[in-house]
Amino acid sequence: MSVEVERKFLVTSEAWRAGARACRIRQGYLCLGADATVRVRLADDAAFLTVKSRTEGISRAEYEYGIPFADGVAMLETLCTRPIIEKTRHFVDHGGRTWVIDVFGAHNDGLVVAEVELGHPDEVVDLPPWAGEEVTSDPRYRNSALVSAPLGSGCDI
Amino acid sequence: MSVEVERKFLVTSEAWRAGARACRIRQGYLCLGADATVRVRLADDAAFLTVKSRTEGISRAEYEYGIPFADGVAMLETLCTRPIIEKTRHFVDHGGRTWVIDVFGAHNDGLVVAEVELGHPDEVVDLPPWAGEEVTSDPRYRNSALVSAPLGSGCDI
Repeated sequence: MSVEVERKFLVTSEAWRAGARACRIRQGYLCLGADATVRVRLADDAAFLTVKSRTEGISRAEYEYGIPFADGVAMLETLCTRPIIEKTRHFVDHGGRTWVIDVFGAHNDGLVVAEVELGHPDEVVDLPPWAGEEVTSDPRYRNSALVSAPLGSGCDI
Repeated sequence: MSVEVERKFLVTSEAWRAGARACRIRQGYLCLGADATVRVRLADDAAFLTVKSRTEGISRAEYEYGIPFADGVAMLETLCTRPIIEKTRHFVDHGGRTWVIDVFGAHNDGLVVAEVELGHPDEVVDLPPWAGEEVTSDPRYRNSALVSAPLGSGCDI
């Protein structure tokens, strides 16, 4: 188990793209309960099953396990809530931290969100110039919420 | 992924107890969705995370992964739906098959159910003398249902 502490921002420009490393993600949810979510994620050629607790402030418990890729594909295709989330994840170094920038596709096409993971909720973060509005506490930007209420171009936010 | 095909019976006597091997199980559910259930199980000193599809007839897809015991304990205590299911599982050989007999405790105290796993739904099964009413297709006897509607002594069934 790890405790995930992260802050999340909308992205205002393309300046982060230079030198970013990318991986392709497809993910869905086996459940979206009040206390826990269970996610199936395919990241390039790896698959993971992840249990997350309800968010407490900006932190939550996370339990992640690598699983056979074929299991991940099968669960995503047959057991996960529709629609599946598709995004390209980019890793960008800034201010001594690695930022994660998710460029969403499919139903959330046009949405770009940057996240940075912290060791502690009160850590000071050097914000990159392309980090816009902070949406850490906005439930609409949770990936689990993007299944039931996508935020793609043309959707009302 | 494996496909689970099993038949389930109520148990009518104690004759199965001689020579049975036992293990102590505590389990709970992270989700009880229409398409999938996600179960956390502690079996003696091992822990498992198990995803099962909705039952189709008497078979269902099952994906089971061993996880660190401490993770299992933490998820069971903090994330699973109450109450937790407690039972002692006994393994009994009969007619060339291994039968599993679950003696429930806690909220389902008094309930004893025998299950046998098959390779195919149409396989002929040599029923042991202590196997009573078949409840394979009775949704009340699913472990997931025993959380929300326990069948312990004093409960109406």
